Amino acid sequence: MRTIDFRSDTLTKPTEEMRKAMYNAEVGDDVYGEDPTINKLEKLASEIVGKESALFVPTGTMGNQLALLCHTDRGQEVILEDWAHIYRYEVGGLSFLAGLQARPIKSENGIMNPEDVRNAIVKDDDIHHSQTGLICMENTHNMAGGVVVPPSRMKEIFDIAKENNIPVHLDGARVFNAAVALGVDVKELTQYTDSLMFCLSKGLCSPVGSILAGEKKFIDKARRLRKMLGGGMRQGGILAAAGIISLTNMVERLSEDHTRIKELAEGLNKIKGVKINDETVQTNILMINVEDTPYSSNELVDKMKEEGILASSITNDIIRFVTHYYITDEDIEYTIEKLNQII
Amino acid sequence: MRTIDFRSDTLTKPTEEMRKAMYNAEVGDDVYGEDPTINKLEKLASEIVGKESALFVPTGTMGNQLALLCHTDRGQEVILEDWAHIYRYEVGGLSFLAGLQARPIKSENGIMNPEDVRNAIVKDDDIHHSQTGLICMENTHNMAGGVVVPPSRMKEIFDIAKENNIPVHLDGARVFNAAVALGVDVKELTQYTDSLMFCLSKGLCSPVGSILAGEKKFIDKARRLRKMLGGGMRQGGILAAAGIISLTNMVERLSEDHTRIKELAEGLNKIKGVKINDETVQTNILMINVEDTPYSSNELVDKMKEEGILASSITNDIIRFVTHYYITDEDIEYTIEKLNQII
Amino acid sequence: MRTIDFRSDTLTKPTEEMRKAMYNAEVGDDVYGEDPTINKLEKLASEIVGKESALFVPTGTMGNQLALLCHTDRGQEVILEDWAHIYRYEVGGLSFLAGLQARPIKSENGIMNPEDVRNAIVKDDDIHHSQTGLICMENTHNMAGGVVVPPSRMKEIFDIAKENNIPVHLDGARVFNAAVALGVDVKELTQYTDSLMFCLSKGLCSPVGSILAGEKKFIDKARRLRKMLGGGMRQGGILAAAGIISLTNMVERLSEDHTRIKELAEGLNKIKGVKINDETVQTNILMINVEDTPYSSNELVDKMKEEGILASSITNDIIRFVTHYYITDEDIEYTIEKLNQII
Amino acid sequence: MRTIDFRSDTLTKPTEEMRKAMYNAEVGDDVYGEDPTINKLEKLASEIVGKESALFVPTGTMGNQLALLCHTDRGQEVILEDWAHIYRYEVGGLSFLAGLQARPIKSENGIMNPEDVRNAIVKDDDIHHSQTGLICMENTHNMAGGVVVPPSRMKEIFDIAKENNIPVHLDGARVFNAAVALGVDVKELTQYTDSLMFCLSKGLCSPVGSILAGEKKFIDKARRLRKMLGGGMRQGGILAAAGIISLTNMVERLSEDHTRIKELAEGLNKIKGVKINDETVQTNILMINVEDTPYSSNELVDKMKEEGILASSITNDIIRFVTHYYITDEDIEYTIEKLNQII
Repeated sequence: MRTIDFRSDTLTKPTEEMRKAMYNAEVGDDVYGEDPTINKLEKLASEIVGKESALFVPTGTMGNQLALLCHTDRGQEVILEDWAHIYRYEVGGLSFLAGLQARPIKSENGIMNPEDVRNAIVKDDDIHHSQTGLICMENTHNMAGGVVVPPSRMKEIFDIAKENNIPVHLDGARVFNAAVALGVDVKELTQYTDSLMFCLSKGLCSPVGSILAGEKKFIDKARRLRKMLGGGMRQGGILAAAGIISLTNMVERLSEDHTRIKELAEGLNKIKGVKINDETVQTNILMINVEDTPYSSNELVDKMKEEGILASSITNDIIRFVTHYYITDEDIEYTIEKLNQII
Repeated sequence: MRTIDFRSDTLTKPTEEMRKAMYNAEVGDDVYGEDPTINKLEKLASEIVGKESALFVPTGTMGNQLALLCHTDRGQEVILEDWAHIYRYEVGGLSFLAGLQARPIKSENGIMNPEDVRNAIVKDDDIHHSQTGLICMENTHNMAGGVVVPPSRMKEIFDIAKENNIPVHLDGARVFNAAVALGVDVKELTQYTDSLMFCLSKGLCSPVGSILAGEKKFIDKARRLRKMLGGGMRQGGILAAAGIISLTNMVERLSEDHTRIKELAEGLNKIKGVKINDETVQTNILMINVEDTPYSSNELVDKMKEEGILASSITNDIIRFVTHYYITDEDIEYTIEKLNQII
Repeated sequence: MRTIDFRSDTLTKPTEEMRKAMYNAEVGDDVYGEDPTINKLEKLASEIVGKESALFVPTGTMGNQLALLCHTDRGQEVILEDWAHIYRYEVGGLSFLAGLQARPIKSENGIMNPEDVRNAIVKDDDIHHSQTGLICMENTHNMAGGVVVPPSRMKEIFDIAKENNIPVHLDGARVFNAAVALGVDVKELTQYTDSLMFCLSKGLCSPVGSILAGEKKFIDKARRLRKMLGGGMRQGGILAAAGIISLTNMVERLSEDHTRIKELAEGLNKIKGVKINDETVQTNILMINVEDTPYSSNELVDKMKEEGILASSITNDIIRFVTHYYITDEDIEYTIEKLNQII
Repeated sequence: MRTIDFRSDTLTKPTEEMRKAMYNAEVGDDVYGEDPTINKLEKLASEIVGKESALFVPTGTMGNQLALLCHTDRGQEVILEDWAHIYRYEVGGLSFLAGLQARPIKSENGIMNPEDVRNAIVKDDDIHHSQTGLICMENTHNMAGGVVVPPSRMKEIFDIAKENNIPVHLDGARVFNAAVALGVDVKELTQYTDSLMFCLSKGLCSPVGSILAGEKKFIDKARRLRKMLGGGMRQGGILAAAGIISLTNMVERLSEDHTRIKELAEGLNKIKGVKINDETVQTNILMINVEDTPYSSNELVDKMKEEGILASSITNDIIRFVTHYYITDEDIEYTIEKLNQII
């Protein structure tokens, strides 16, 4: 039985083209700045997102943590959405590593209200108060179900930040999904942040690697701290070779993942008891609520597994499906059919 | 013109009795454990709040920060009310010093809903998630307007914590105000926490000093870290002598402050445009909303100052009054009268 | 039997004059900047040591830790003498709080060789290397036996620091002992440091309190972090009142302690088996080596205790005596006599 | 002109065999524990070094930093050799990340004297003292010139540590060079440490990756913190495939690098003015002192570069050569000849 793995787009293996590129990659010692493939990737990446400089890092978490460390002073506050990956899924690193106080903002569908951001800012120099050091956005917002934060909303928050002289970081792990869904150049989004991290893995299929981008001074500082965190890899060009393909050949096809998640949503919506917030079905993530079915999310996940379909139980009621390069139209049909049978 | 200072009960100067006690205090080097007055105070304090051990610290902030440091591991989450002093008024120390990730809970009047606490707990050992390391309560809750958290509510939260094997700390800066307002022994409250900090200054009039209390093992650890933070004072018995009077002679009279704040509330409530949430007028703090008066809070504070009345502008609409040992019945009458004239 | 306590000058209790000053002290809330006695002390202190600004802190450790926090960035190196108090006796705070990497310099009698300091400096921007963020001196040097670091030596190290654009902090817990021993104004020493901490307790007899002094900008930052560490005391003027007497009436008499320690050294030197490095007998601390006596240091300390004489066993061979306000000429004679009998 | 690159063995590119293995590597998402090649490598690695468990990390620095974080409590001391990589070349991470106080031990040729280690241990529970939390060794010792720490010496230090209940970590970046030079199974060395890190890159030629090994409980904790530091790579099996070849096919041949460094040392020793400490020529690193030549180390490095020979200037007098897979016998001869001509 074939396995259809909807658990995450992080599960994507490198494509044959990537494997060949890695096999042939020209490499050097990147700690000496001598890996030509990494140098090429960093230049390419910075141009694509419209930033002065870029840094290759082994994971998105390292990219985000470096941004926290480089933008802020210990003891400051970071404003972020209540279900942001940086807050909920990075092992408390924002406090452990950067010593930052979280100021989470509750939101609808992962999109922070600019007025809530404005009200959360502390810039009063009062001796009692931790001062706001950074505002983070996440686009697409993973836990909201791959929701796209519109450029207009990013601009509003960015403008508030700039009025208050506060830097902005974008957790853009899936920012290319956002750009493709909007049908815009990714720079339409990245213009509204000082720095961003995006992943070459996930939908873009690289086996390992993310990019941190921003001003040269910021990236120079991040390069130093990357060494300290243990991210200064040697012949990382092996991985960067795949990353270049991610950026050149894999972005446009994300629209296929989006089409398929909509088909999946449409199909599952017809199943009695399955509830979907259609508003959030925008990119490659689908959250379904199964509280009105006879099963808990864990039970359903187990039953699907018996049919070769893997998905993630997020809460007792919520199951998450993620489409990616290795999910086909047949997989979507099969999944709808099987889930129909199960429920 | 006499000054009536409602800004805070932290402004209370030592009483004549305290000054005499400090003058006569028997002292020694407390780093050697040889200050008899501190030893006496620590013993007395631990007995009053029903804990095994107690530690004299120069400030409430140090007591709270020590509790965070001693209960938790770096990178864990601390659940606390969204307007808790530890979160909003301790300079980000929870992250700077203890490396903790804040998980704030919004509440009505400073009293957290136990179900919200339960939902915020993370004890899943998932490699991505910061795990809950501590739950903090604050009683009375300063920014909610001196609201008393009822023992039943403390018990519910304490029970949830214990079910999940999570320690509980009480920021009891004004816990004696809570006990006096409830008419119960303070142990009725402190039984529902593993550790607590309370202030000898504020309503209890000591010039300097707070107490951290808890299990002996916890206090031993706190004593070590107090040295590191710079709180290991030498002949601190001078201050402890006042602290003993705070605990023996100053607790019962807090009820007078509570009576006066109610009189003040009643008087101000009659002024057109002044809005008061009567529910929160429970101890020695009064928040009045002046948005329906012709003045902003800052303007009113300035106008009162011209009449010798000092109060704090908390937001554009909110003014805070705090009663204490040096506020008399006449002061209350005078204040009502003057504010009436002003508005 | 009377007790003669040579264990430390930290054991000094406040004088009668200090007790009266504390009784009468005019106080206010120092967090509001309204304690007139603290304000007076801070102004006086900054003038005496020739710095722009000063801050009252509860302990010398807090003063030193604030200096580390305010001068450096996390992850930098701090160069200090191998037996510096900041390195050996402050609970690892330099790493725990400030996140600094210690670069200890071995020295003769606590006086670092300027060339060793120069060689230890790292200012190469190499991505692998922690960069030097601070150089600390200690004067007098406690563990070297109260040795005075000469102004010329301080200047040499200060000049090296300035060539390399590195700030300098002086742990001057007993800097007035140094100045009095040298017969110079304390500013002769403090001119060769950017910041310093000195104690009002110890030889100057205040019950509690130290001063951190430096540029206004530095002290402003330290004031903020003092709040976070829990050193923002309320009516601390009680303690500051004693501090003012320490600075005005207690400095000159330190020479008496120095005379007595020399008498003690002279007397003990005649006892068979007692070895003293005369070079280090300069201020109020005496280290004697007892390895050639029939007793270990612990045994001797116990035997002295039976005669009412308290001293500290530092190592198996070394006993430390410290003179202070409460040690008289008779105490010195008595001690020499008794130790003679014991050995 | 061909380039002969003696600067470091970190410069080694993957072999053809490795490239093929990476091309064919079976991969999965290692954050889910599903990468079969990583799982295989971790099992293999733990067996080879005789530890219960192992973890694949992107760099040696991350492996070492995780060991510091997992063995210690913040504020403790770590005893290590004065020129240890962990102390001098990891960007101050021991203090920045783990909050540890460095207690460096000066040594001859990188081999710490066990008595110096014993004397540096602090386990007295004195409230002033940072307590020893970890002892680190480095084998081979890079900055001492690739010197092997003999098993007997490791045992002595390990025994002292165990007497004092202190964990031991080995920075074994080049521990296989040590084992090969000694002609023993690597477990002869690794038995005298609780944990170790070793590199798959460097002499073993993998492009990226190191291993942290130790008890299962320790590695479980490290796996969690690896995620926080940003080392939780997804399809890292690409890299692990090379790592398996490093461990199975590349270890024995390290002896060739050792033979060549000895030939190089012999040849250069005959050049007038070049001084070599023969005692330290043990593995694949050679330090030559050129102070008696007409050139500074930088000048010589530049002149060699013109001839296609790259080496590292360590100090004004010292040049470092490192042999590795891509250095041939002809390269050695050519280098001796050219350097002879230059000097």
